Amino acid sequence: MPRAVDAVAVLVAMPGARIGLARAVRGCWPRGVLCYSTAAGGPAVSSPLDGKSREKILTLQSMNPQVRAVEYAVRGPIVLRAGEIESELQRGVVKPFCEVIKANIGDAHAMGQQPITFLRQVIALCTYPELMDDPSFPLDAKLRASKILQSCGGQSLGSYSSSQGVSCIRENVAQYIMQRDGGIPADPDNIYLTTGASDGIASILKILVSGEEKSRTGIMIPIPQYPLYSAAISELDAIQVNYYLDEENCWALDVNELRRALYQARDYCNPKVLCIINPGNPTGQVQSRHCIEEVIHFAWEEGLFLLADEVYQDNVYSDNCKFHSFKKVLYEMGPEYFTNVELASFHSTSKGYMGECGYRGGYMEVVNLHRDIAAQLVKMLSVRLCPPVSGQAAMDVVVNPPKPEEESYNRFIREKEAVLSNLAYKAKLTEEIFNQIPGIKCNPLQGAMYAFPRIFIPDKAIQRAKELRMAPDMFYCMQLLEETGICVVPGSGFGQKEGTYHFRMTILPAVEKLKTLLQKVKEFHIKFLDEYS
Amino acid sequence: MPRAVDAVAVLVAMPGARIGLARAVRGCWPRGVLCYSTAAGGPAVSSPLDGKSREKILTLQSMNPQVRAVEYAVRGPIVLRAGEIESELQRGVVKPFCEVIKANIGDAHAMGQQPITFLRQVIALCTYPELMDDPSFPLDAKLRASKILQSCGGQSLGSYSSSQGVSCIRENVAQYIMQRDGGIPADPDNIYLTTGASDGIASILKILVSGEEKSRTGIMIPIPQYPLYSAAISELDAIQVNYYLDEENCWALDVNELRRALYQARDYCNPKVLCIINPGNPTGQVQSRHCIEEVIHFAWEEGLFLLADEVYQDNVYSDNCKFHSFKKVLYEMGPEYFTNVELASFHSTSKGYMGECGYRGGYMEVVNLHRDIAAQLVKMLSVRLCPPVSGQAAMDVVVNPPKPEEESYNRFIREKEAVLSNLAYKAKLTEEIFNQIPGIKCNPLQGAMYAFPRIFIPDKAIQRAKELRMAPDMFYCMQLLEETGICVVPGSGFGQKEGTYHFRMTILPAVEKLKTLLQKVKEFHIKFLDEYS
Repeated sequence: MPRAVDAVAVLVAMPGARIGLARAVRGCWPRGVLCYSTAAGGPAVSSPLDGKSREKILTLQSMNPQVRAVEYAVRGPIVLRAGEIESELQRGVVKPFCEVIKANIGDAHAMGQQPITFLRQVIALCTYPELMDDPSFPLDAKLRASKILQSCGGQSLGSYSSSQGVSCIRENVAQYIMQRDGGIPADPDNIYLTTGASDGIASILKILVSGEEKSRTGIMIPIPQYPLYSAAISELDAIQVNYYLDEENCWALDVNELRRALYQARDYCNPKVLCIINPGNPTGQVQSRHCIEEVIHFAWEEGLFLLADEVYQDNVYSDNCKFHSFKKVLYEMGPEYFTNVELASFHSTSKGYMGECGYRGGYMEVVNLHRDIAAQLVKMLSVRLCPPVSGQAAMDVVVNPPKPEEESYNRFIREKEAVLSNLAYKAKLTEEIFNQIPGIKCNPLQGAMYAFPRIFIPDKAIQRAKELRMAPDMFYCMQLLEETGICVVPGSGFGQKEGTYHFRMTILPAVEKLKTLLQKVKEFHIKFLDEYS
Repeated sequence: MPRAVDAVAVLVAMPGARIGLARAVRGCWPRGVLCYSTAAGGPAVSSPLDGKSREKILTLQSMNPQVRAVEYAVRGPIVLRAGEIESELQRGVVKPFCEVIKANIGDAHAMGQQPITFLRQVIALCTYPELMDDPSFPLDAKLRASKILQSCGGQSLGSYSSSQGVSCIRENVAQYIMQRDGGIPADPDNIYLTTGASDGIASILKILVSGEEKSRTGIMIPIPQYPLYSAAISELDAIQVNYYLDEENCWALDVNELRRALYQARDYCNPKVLCIINPGNPTGQVQSRHCIEEVIHFAWEEGLFLLADEVYQDNVYSDNCKFHSFKKVLYEMGPEYFTNVELASFHSTSKGYMGECGYRGGYMEVVNLHRDIAAQLVKMLSVRLCPPVSGQAAMDVVVNPPKPEEESYNRFIREKEAVLSNLAYKAKLTEEIFNQIPGIKCNPLQGAMYAFPRIFIPDKAIQRAKELRMAPDMFYCMQLLEETGICVVPGSGFGQKEGTYHFRMTILPAVEKLKTLLQKVKEFHIKFLDEYS
């Protein structure tokens, strides 16, 4: 704590200070002045003019230790280095490549994917309703925009919505879920619009965490996982309980492994939440209906709150795979399940065929939430007022696309299918090329938008990484970045079985660029093996 | 914990269950089945068919107690009741009024304020760049939109921005701050775009909180406060340290009161953050430059991290008041201050003359943040990926409005000044009318967009409120709502000196509606006094 005497010493002695002694003596600085007359004249008083900054209040030592412990690889050190390299290239530094390819994050538009026209038309109309008179906008887009605006305060996207989201959009979300799930009912009161799926997941986890020491809430997450989960768990000072997906079996979830993880965790915490990512991120597996039934039964049996991260529900590519929502399977398992199992599931505008990440749109559906908790959740969300309303409008279009009889239908379907078939092609291509590379093994990309190949790293490279105090796969990815400009995320950022190494790469670059990228990875990998063998 | 045997009993016995015994016996439910053969036949096994739901996992008892403790009056019980009354009116229930007037929240567009045309034009152009060819859009809006898009990945609002926000927008924010503060430098690296100001405030508080028991972080907040602060403090399990604003002195901040609060708090926590709201919410006071100097000196002297909530910086109405930013005063106080005092200040698209709440745009400027902490902050923000990009674009227009030589300038200035002069008129009007009502006393509304009048509540009404287990001002506001349809927030939701009562009301309704509203409050108040005297 700085001593009061220093205050006035500074005011007097510093040429740059515009507030001088006179003012201090007048008593503007109540406490400093009182001390001044007795102390400031003495030579023993340490002078703040030594040029040293005072110690900061907020430091690595004093900051929130839970935040300090957070790791988020998707935008971690490798991405920071990629940014630096981009700047170096711009400054004319010569590299063995001319651009950085950011395959670290599922950011479709940044990779050149075009927005869905209808979605943008609706949002533009909501933004600037003068466009309602513009004949170049289709009628169905105008009707849609007009309906959204009627549900907004003052018919403006600039009003706060209710904390839970615009009511007509929640109704459309419920309708979408009902159709998706073959008629199983969905209640708009159970829908919460969110600021991207991340916000919904973090919110529900926040309300779930309680207890101290051994009764602290344990949250079961898959390994590999999307690091939002580990980050949220760290921030909340909850206990991360890992269950491992089975790489040998296309990254399938095995209920016996869930059981192992749960029973072991009960020795040191109170596991009460089970998180599922389906289709998987980073692993791309699509869970079978049978697997989902087993998971739901397990949650029912063991008294676990289920979180189903289903943001890639539109991204399924393998012919023998189909997306089954946890909600649908839950209902089909009968009343004992659907009246009891507490489930929150999540969707987003960021993935699928839209790729509208920047709008931060999303929703969460909760099932079997205790009535008191619904009120608590609304209260908690109210503090942040509401999710961005333009993101809510984007969500509306995602859940309520043009219908066959409407003007925009054909164009919409054409655009949507172009994106999805392109992704399916790239999923297959990526798997094939990776599996041609010696020392790389890649499971089929059944869904989502990433490859998560296993890479063989020779002992000498592991040794070198150790010397550099890096995880071996971080060392690999850094080398890849420095030599090729390709930015991917090391498997250690997602979690992996001890002694195995991976990286996550999006398949979003355009086909030709993706081919080049895979070719470069191949050349790099062969050279790397050669260098460290 | 439910017992495994129940699972199979249900599967067998329930006609609605589509998954029957055969499947269970095949071993789909590994654990349930093992138990079934030995137990399910016995009549002693309790049946899940009793019709009772099982106990929920997430309940008021098991939930996060910090979230449970949160209170957020601005959207609290009175607002929920207002929603119910609206539904009742729609259903044709007869009331002594025909509409609910929601004066509980600063939601300008919902109250009929029109968006600033230029802002919406720029966002519409960013959303749907095909409009660049539309001759009805002004050239300066097109240039602005084009510049924003060039800074977005793939030139799309649908790409993630960097976690800190779009770089060219951060540059424009820095430029704006520099101009606002008479040339004092601002660094784009110190600017963080946020999801509304609330998000920025909650983020910086989150990183600041640490320690246990007596070393737990104490956060000093004004009373009355905007309840985001108390809510965030509760969620973070930090210690709220109240300092009282001086109602007798136009809600001025008195540094002696800061000192009292700080010294007392040191007995039970580690106070290290001082939050200031200027112009004040809910109180509307505008701090004098002298007061700000004193506060900064106090923070310097006592080693406090300063948070300056300056979202109402454009909303100053009293002729003898002027907005002074903490940043500017800090720099003018000389190097000992501006090289040491850690300050975060906040702005938003939601207030001012724009009122674009729904876009959730905002920024935070941090000064003197430790370099390590800047990295930690970026890491923490990365987990949520980025603030909504359309909200960032809205912020861009707020900090970089049309210039005098540009096509849209005249219209922009006309619209901006119409909003601000209208607010200034309503601020004066509200103060005057309140002060004509016996038993109501209202300080001048120097700034922001609320009145926070003190109301006299007779003993008999206080007694009645006690019987109903309500705060007396909650009782008053509920009565006001039921009898007039006017929704305001009781002072107890913001904090007030023991034994004093207030409510917060926005001055956003259009002039004629505001006059009607004030007249109705007057009649209600006189009747209320009469009834309970």
